[in-house]
Amino acid sequence: MPREITGFSNPLVKRIRSLREKKLRKREGVFLAEGLRILTEAREQGVLPEMVVLASDARPHPLAQTLLEEVEAAGGEVILTTPDILGKMSGKDNAQAIIGVYRDRLTPLAELDRSVAPIWFVAQAMRDPGNLGTLMRIGDAVGAGGVILIDDCVDPFSVETVRASMGALFTQKLAQADWPEFLGWLRAGPGQLVGTSLNTAFDYQEPSYAAPTFILIGNEARGLPEDYEAACDLLVKMPMMGRADSLNASVAGAVMAYEVLNQLRRTQRDE
Amino acid sequence: MPREITGFSNPLVKRIRSLREKKLRKREGVFLAEGLRILTEAREQGVLPEMVVLASDARPHPLAQTLLEEVEAAGGEVILTTPDILGKMSGKDNAQAIIGVYRDRLTPLAELDRSVAPIWFVAQAMRDPGNLGTLMRIGDAVGAGGVILIDDCVDPFSVETVRASMGALFTQKLAQADWPEFLGWLRAGPGQLVGTSLNTAFDYQEPSYAAPTFILIGNEARGLPEDYEAACDLLVKMPMMGRADSLNASVAGAVMAYEVLNQLRRTQRDE
Repeated sequence: MPREITGFSNPLVKRIRSLREKKLRKREGVFLAEGLRILTEAREQGVLPEMVVLASDARPHPLAQTLLEEVEAAGGEVILTTPDILGKMSGKDNAQAIIGVYRDRLTPLAELDRSVAPIWFVAQAMRDPGNLGTLMRIGDAVGAGGVILIDDCVDPFSVETVRASMGALFTQKLAQADWPEFLGWLRAGPGQLVGTSLNTAFDYQEPSYAAPTFILIGNEARGLPEDYEAACDLLVKMPMMGRADSLNASVAGAVMAYEVLNQLRRTQRDE
Repeated sequence: MPREITGFSNPLVKRIRSLREKKLRKREGVFLAEGLRILTEAREQGVLPEMVVLASDARPHPLAQTLLEEVEAAGGEVILTTPDILGKMSGKDNAQAIIGVYRDRLTPLAELDRSVAPIWFVAQAMRDPGNLGTLMRIGDAVGAGGVILIDDCVDPFSVETVRASMGALFTQKLAQADWPEFLGWLRAGPGQLVGTSLNTAFDYQEPSYAAPTFILIGNEARGLPEDYEAACDLLVKMPMMGRADSLNASVAGAVMAYEVLNQLRRTQRDE
């Protein structure tokens, strides 16, 4: 049975609100996703929230109704509340009408099966939640397997990242590793590591890419550390015809990933 | 001679702050750009601010010093103030150390010379300042001429757009038009209009693109209106291998623009 919350002072209001903070997300091992579109995307991937909160005065959308039933059937909790309290939980004026609380989705690197996808992103010290979420969305579009986060990246489970991913967070695998650990794992199996860099004149369309290709993208402001670049199988750059010397990190990832995908599509057609 | 402002109540503080609002930017026909990197980019494009404000306790960076001298030589105004007042002007805690006030840079559509660049972006009802700024930055990278804004787009001169453009606002032409006006102008000269759309199975790598190519990108949530799509010479789509049905608007623009650029580069090499 759904539980109803009608008071602002209910501890759950504070708890959900606190999950906007990384520290408290980490402690509980859960994160928030907001909006029916993203929650439905998760459900279609077979991922249900542990808890779902929605405004009780709204007649639920059929998709929300299905979700609620499945959450209860799976032993999760359904919370009905007022739009005001929901707004307080989400800390926004125009709150989404539904919030899900999900268990963290990090995959241990050792359990990542690289053979399931031809493209993987490796993000090094990516700081912008919009960039990381957009990278997940791009990964979904090109049929990538996921994103491996190296060094001090933004939290992949922040509300902003989840929102920018448009639900791709639930189709892409996410792993975290330090650089030596990642390199050790990478070299224990097939795959080439391709770094996008300004320190090369090697055009990104020159090489032949083969699956799995790992696309390494450096920090938004500083690019890749020198020794990381040295460890790459290939360093490539996109042509820059104007005054800018770089592209936005997720845009560079997209241009690179579509080149790899296009080469793989041509190879498939020619076979 | 630089003018010094030491009081929070100076009318200029309020005036600069007010330029974060579109209505007041429009009334004055000016906009703000912040940070030495963007102001220097503008200067290198031959664009000087009418007014430049910086914190007087900082020993100016040599590039800032050059800028100040050129602004004064050109009859512009140099304002020195305190970091606190600068922070109040920019409305941010960690204010950039320098702010420029620039004259609006809209080019009347009739004065746009399409022959100077092989690629142009046409943004329809683009609402996100980050997307529009990123599109300008991509335009600069691929050697595009600029962005033509159709319908109710976000203000290209908002502080967020200027920041996301990373200075490309000063290398890219910007024009505004309604759809019939744009179509009339387009068809009075050479060029193909290519729409990115979900309503086609035509792969974006199939057609041969020729300069000038106009890449039309629709609203982030709704895509292009049906009759706009019908007016395109080509409708194309990027392959979507996963569950997502679309890419972020600026990412789609980048993938599309690099395809056009790559085709043009091949043609040049083959000639």
